[in-house]
Amino acid sequence: MEKKVNMPVNLKATKNDELHSIPGIQLGIAEAEMRYKSKKDLLVISIDSGAAVSGIFTKNKFTAAPVIVAKEHLKVSKSTRALIVNTGSANAGTGDDGIKNARVVCEMLANELNINAEDILPFSTGVIMMHLPIDKISMGIPIAIKNLKHDNWLNAAESIMTTDTVAKTSSTRIMIQDEEVYVTGISKGSGMIEPNMATMLGFIGTNANITKEMLDGMIVEIADKTFNCITVDGDTSTNDSFIIIATKQSNHQLIDSKNENYYVLKEALLETAKILAQSIIRDGEGATKFISINVHGGKNSEECLSVGKSIAHSPLVKTAFFASDPNLGRILAAIGNSPIEFLDINLIDVFLNQVQFAKSGSLAENYKESMGEEEMKNKEITLDIYLGRGEFTGTVWTTDLSYDYVKINAEYRS
Amino acid sequence: MEKKVNMPVNLKATKNDELHSIPGIQLGIAEAEMRYKSKKDLLVISIDSGAAVSGIFTKNKFTAAPVIVAKEHLKVSKSTRALIVNTGSANAGTGDDGIKNARVVCEMLANELNINAEDILPFSTGVIMMHLPIDKISMGIPIAIKNLKHDNWLNAAESIMTTDTVAKTSSTRIMIQDEEVYVTGISKGSGMIEPNMATMLGFIGTNANITKEMLDGMIVEIADKTFNCITVDGDTSTNDSFIIIATKQSNHQLIDSKNENYYVLKEALLETAKILAQSIIRDGEGATKFISINVHGGKNSEECLSVGKSIAHSPLVKTAFFASDPNLGRILAAIGNSPIEFLDINLIDVFLNQVQFAKSGSLAENYKESMGEEEMKNKEITLDIYLGRGEFTGTVWTTDLSYDYVKINAEYRS
Repeated sequence: MEKKVNMPVNLKATKNDELHSIPGIQLGIAEAEMRYKSKKDLLVISIDSGAAVSGIFTKNKFTAAPVIVAKEHLKVSKSTRALIVNTGSANAGTGDDGIKNARVVCEMLANELNINAEDILPFSTGVIMMHLPIDKISMGIPIAIKNLKHDNWLNAAESIMTTDTVAKTSSTRIMIQDEEVYVTGISKGSGMIEPNMATMLGFIGTNANITKEMLDGMIVEIADKTFNCITVDGDTSTNDSFIIIATKQSNHQLIDSKNENYYVLKEALLETAKILAQSIIRDGEGATKFISINVHGGKNSEECLSVGKSIAHSPLVKTAFFASDPNLGRILAAIGNSPIEFLDINLIDVFLNQVQFAKSGSLAENYKESMGEEEMKNKEITLDIYLGRGEFTGTVWTTDLSYDYVKINAEYRS
Repeated sequence: MEKKVNMPVNLKATKNDELHSIPGIQLGIAEAEMRYKSKKDLLVISIDSGAAVSGIFTKNKFTAAPVIVAKEHLKVSKSTRALIVNTGSANAGTGDDGIKNARVVCEMLANELNINAEDILPFSTGVIMMHLPIDKISMGIPIAIKNLKHDNWLNAAESIMTTDTVAKTSSTRIMIQDEEVYVTGISKGSGMIEPNMATMLGFIGTNANITKEMLDGMIVEIADKTFNCITVDGDTSTNDSFIIIATKQSNHQLIDSKNENYYVLKEALLETAKILAQSIIRDGEGATKFISINVHGGKNSEECLSVGKSIAHSPLVKTAFFASDPNLGRILAAIGNSPIEFLDINLIDVFLNQVQFAKSGSLAENYKESMGEEEMKNKEITLDIYLGRGEFTGTVWTTDLSYDYVKINAEYRS
């Protein structure tokens, strides 16, 4: 695996014993040598019968074969019983053969676990336009099944890494009606990351007792405030998937309406998803900075996000952050490029951390270059943009653009 | 000035005697030390009375002060008599003071040339959110005026360069009704280049005899097929401007309708603009490749361009080109990210130069990795994408994304 020379931004691997096991979920991994030797590259997640499972997927029109099959299975299955994830090949741009292969993988796992193929969701990540190494997956499946256990989340996070340098995990415990509810999640992704259904892969498990209907609604809201707010390079992957599994094994009352328990659970899932999403940015390809862009005063949250993305996607803004160069006019130019109609630039204020450098669309009087230089040195940078158009806000998290981004992407595969 | 270590892609400076002078246009330059010593950085273009002058400008909402003033002057002036261009400061994000300064520059030049300020169009390029160095411009103007001459196009092209490494020029001669008509143009731009009104600065002069009304229509068509088809980094500048000056001093009949002469002239202007636009790409920041993306079979040309831009803006595609890595799945993913509704990926064919690698949205059967590797080695690369949706086409020209792009933009200013 191509290794990054740089370090992720304020992100360390969790220890396995810091991750709560989820009653009803077991995880098993294998080294199937799909692309590299001695790398965990196959993951099976086994789920007890009766769980509620919700998923949302990439909006890229070149949807990968496993995503097509996973969406279909989610629709027809009465109870999703397993997930299978391979790295190496994304099984995207592979046509009908790709779909056939994704089904074969499900059938192989179904035979081994003695369940229905339609109760299995397949996921792939890796090189596009490369067929799945079916033989290797076939050999890996029994190994992964033998490895199935509840306290295996860190191994699982490691097994889905590609250009990631750190395994991404998050775990929390909440109480609902005096019952312990655990939430544990993993994610992967470092490049080909764009705000619109952005995660490469994110899986969260909980033993919460909630209907699938409620969970289906919740996952959309959560994705919109977490995985959909991140961008590394503006490239939406063909394979993005975000899954929440609720095993319902906690003894609190079933959540079947938007009651107090619903919001307590949602908050915990949201926090978990946010940490997983931000971890992808902190470990973004070549990242040396973690940048939060808060856009205030929009007519709706969509236009706030569009301003945030316009800044986050600008190579000129990103290289200035990399250089710690307060070339802040590039931020104004990026705001000016956002697709908002009738934007009055004379109302726009912009702050770098706490320092105001633009007032009413122009250089702020008290701003001095040295102030910008000082703030630019930080590894964590916050931009606050005030549009003065309305009451809505939106946040985008992104990275800078460094030599290492180019290096990693010019050398990945080789 | 920050120098690029790499060379532009198949682009050499023209010799001055290869550039036709335009009767009715004189150019003068000065070294006003606006940002660097011993660099030509101020240009005055003097135009005889009676010329038709058309312009189109950036769509960035943070429109620079000189662009605001130039648009206003173009509207009210009966006869544009001069252009003035400075590098160093873009005079954008400078509020009311910026507009005042742009007017002061026009007034200073108007006094020296004894013409009206509203008959002058001002242009600036350089750092955003930095005020114009009025004193230096004031000292430079008389020097530039003293330097005014007809055969000064190469010096003019050199005087508007910023991160450009080569002066960009193009010149041609056509016959209209046995009269010699000359077309000569210059452009600048290397970064902050995006397809929607994309040139940083482009100026074309001709002695053709054409009404302003005809020229106003022609310039839009020409920009749409030339400067609006290029992208380096997807960042539309605040200062983009494209101007055509027709001095009307050729003795052919006045072109006041879309007759044969109109199309002969349009073709010559189009070719000149195309060379100037492509020159910007060939000298794009850090460029090692010149990439033409032809999109065929769209329902309209807009959707063809949107597919082309989606590919041209993808950092993953651009880094793969830089590495000469035939990681062609990234091209499919970029097509899948274009904002076209109801795109049927099963109809999509893609060719790299003459090699088909995707057929019906999937890996082409006869394609072998070695074929892609061979094609990727070229400095000039053409992608042909067939959408299978309709009869329209569109072309985008772009560069790869190299270490040097990051280097130039992380170090520009410092």
